[in-house]
Amino acid sequence: MRIALDAMGGDHAPGPIVAGAVEAVRDQSDLTVVLVGDRERIEAELRKARNPAHDRLPIQYASQVVGMDEKPVEALRKKRDNSISKCWGLMASGDVKAVVSAGNTGAMVASALFNAKMFLPGIRRPGIAAIFPSHQGPIVIIDVGANMNAKAEDLYQYGVMGSIYAETILGVTEPRIGLLNVGTEEEKGTDLTKATRALYQQSPLAHRFVGNVEGRDIYEGHARVVVCEGFVGNVLLKAGEGAVEFLFATLKQELARLLPGLPADAGQSLVGGLSGLKTRYEYHEFGGGPLLGIRGACIICHGASDARAIKNALRVAGTLAEDRLNQQIVEQLAAAPNEVVADASGS
Amino acid sequence: MRIALDAMGGDHAPGPIVAGAVEAVRDQSDLTVVLVGDRERIEAELRKARNPAHDRLPIQYASQVVGMDEKPVEALRKKRDNSISKCWGLMASGDVKAVVSAGNTGAMVASALFNAKMFLPGIRRPGIAAIFPSHQGPIVIIDVGANMNAKAEDLYQYGVMGSIYAETILGVTEPRIGLLNVGTEEEKGTDLTKATRALYQQSPLAHRFVGNVEGRDIYEGHARVVVCEGFVGNVLLKAGEGAVEFLFATLKQELARLLPGLPADAGQSLVGGLSGLKTRYEYHEFGGGPLLGIRGACIICHGASDARAIKNALRVAGTLAEDRLNQQIVEQLAAAPNEVVADASGS
Repeated sequence: MRIALDAMGGDHAPGPIVAGAVEAVRDQSDLTVVLVGDRERIEAELRKARNPAHDRLPIQYASQVVGMDEKPVEALRKKRDNSISKCWGLMASGDVKAVVSAGNTGAMVASALFNAKMFLPGIRRPGIAAIFPSHQGPIVIIDVGANMNAKAEDLYQYGVMGSIYAETILGVTEPRIGLLNVGTEEEKGTDLTKATRALYQQSPLAHRFVGNVEGRDIYEGHARVVVCEGFVGNVLLKAGEGAVEFLFATLKQELARLLPGLPADAGQSLVGGLSGLKTRYEYHEFGGGPLLGIRGACIICHGASDARAIKNALRVAGTLAEDRLNQQIVEQLAAAPNEVVADASGS
Repeated sequence: MRIALDAMGGDHAPGPIVAGAVEAVRDQSDLTVVLVGDRERIEAELRKARNPAHDRLPIQYASQVVGMDEKPVEALRKKRDNSISKCWGLMASGDVKAVVSAGNTGAMVASALFNAKMFLPGIRRPGIAAIFPSHQGPIVIIDVGANMNAKAEDLYQYGVMGSIYAETILGVTEPRIGLLNVGTEEEKGTDLTKATRALYQQSPLAHRFVGNVEGRDIYEGHARVVVCEGFVGNVLLKAGEGAVEFLFATLKQELARLLPGLPADAGQSLVGGLSGLKTRYEYHEFGGGPLLGIRGACIICHGASDARAIKNALRVAGTLAEDRLNQQIVEQLAAAPNEVVADASGS
């Protein structure tokens, strides 16, 4: 498995990014990670590592970086030699089977969209999937930010792709699919949700479509795949992170207030246990969200990714690239209602 | 102060609804609550109460109830004698200054929208405000579900109304206003967010407009008023509730696992402390969200409201109805860019 990693993308790049690659190739003897970016800075990071497997950590030079806050399309146009475009170039040429970046999400998506040949046959618009926790175990929410102008047909395709992703990564067979909405009743929502509902009900996925899912119900896990437009999904994902951070910060204060009454070791074990709990709801485990609907595999990581998150992202990217996932997506889209599938031009 | 209360609305109505009214009139000697609904069932609940102030708890008979899951518009059309429409009728006739319901939210909003004369002058579409917690104290998010087809002009009006609400209820003077979006950079988001941003930047609110707010940033509280379209706001509100419930359920399990190592009383105080923490993030304190932009005051409560939530909703409804809030909204809209303000027909 050969994966291109945007060594320059991320809030603290290239340090933790390169460190994650070093760990990943140490764990997986068949993995090669092409480190894309500033050669000198990457080499400096490699020198800090303990016995890195240099032969499986080649460097691909890119002189420019798209900043985390830069306007994606403009930056990609101005900075032709940026590390993100170079990663996609390696994928387009067949040199690597997957790309991973913790850099500018918009630039990662835009770079993929620039080249409709990167789309799987029949795909209208790729979507980003994210993993949420629920009482039934992890669930998939798609799209969390790739597509700001989704149509019902896109939300149908996200159901197909999200299901196959849930099967591959979470091991959930035939997952139930829900449509994020403002109420459970059929007529609720916007024109988009109504059209999406109608599309699912007439489709081969009808038996797995459980209808509307409210914000509150997400965590019940009755639907293991929840589809929504990218704007809502992105707000939901980030607000969930914000809520968890906020609650744990408040809990910490509250515990500090309560702990003086507890024996020191009990307090320690409690704080330790809660930290473990927090970790369960963080993005590290799955390393980031895949951009589904493209040839090969692509994982978009959180900007704050540490080495562990990058290592896991590389593992998941490898799994997705090796799996029949893309083949299944193409097959299942071929069985979908005609209007759902994009024509050969990918438009 | 005279307020109409939909005694039949809510998951467990009329029990906790009537109980909340009994408590409210006990606390406020100048308050009269008109209990709207099934006379016999309301009387049965009043008999359960300890010395209710009957003279300040008149009953207005309504023979029908809009179910929590009924289609709002259809139900309002078919059930002419429903308790929600009757509440609004009392407001339209000037008999009461506020309405409160924990019933079908869609029916509450639709009933208000049916009668554009209920709109304040210049208001395009009323919006529901909700209170969220943040590191800077409570903040206002508007709209959380009244308007599924918002325009930039609506989101501008929500900023005006949300600010005045934050000043009135939270005591925050000149609150900063943020626009919920998928990134902080100017060009992020949808056509709606771009148009909304442009509108704010050219308006008298420009100095208080802090631009885009991501989901994660909500809890930072940098913006004390966050505007968004009703679909996103509703998902955000309910997902926030779901996340808190989920986290506390998981915490409880985790504590049960950790507690055997703690002295029993320490464990008890810890669980008690955490329950107190949870309460802080629940809707009870403010009783529900106001529908802003209408003559008088309207509080839409959570379906699961208990007596305390209803009592608080009646208190807040009274405060809003007595305050200069509506007058301020009308004045500030008059100062807004022309295109923002609805014409006299309220359309």
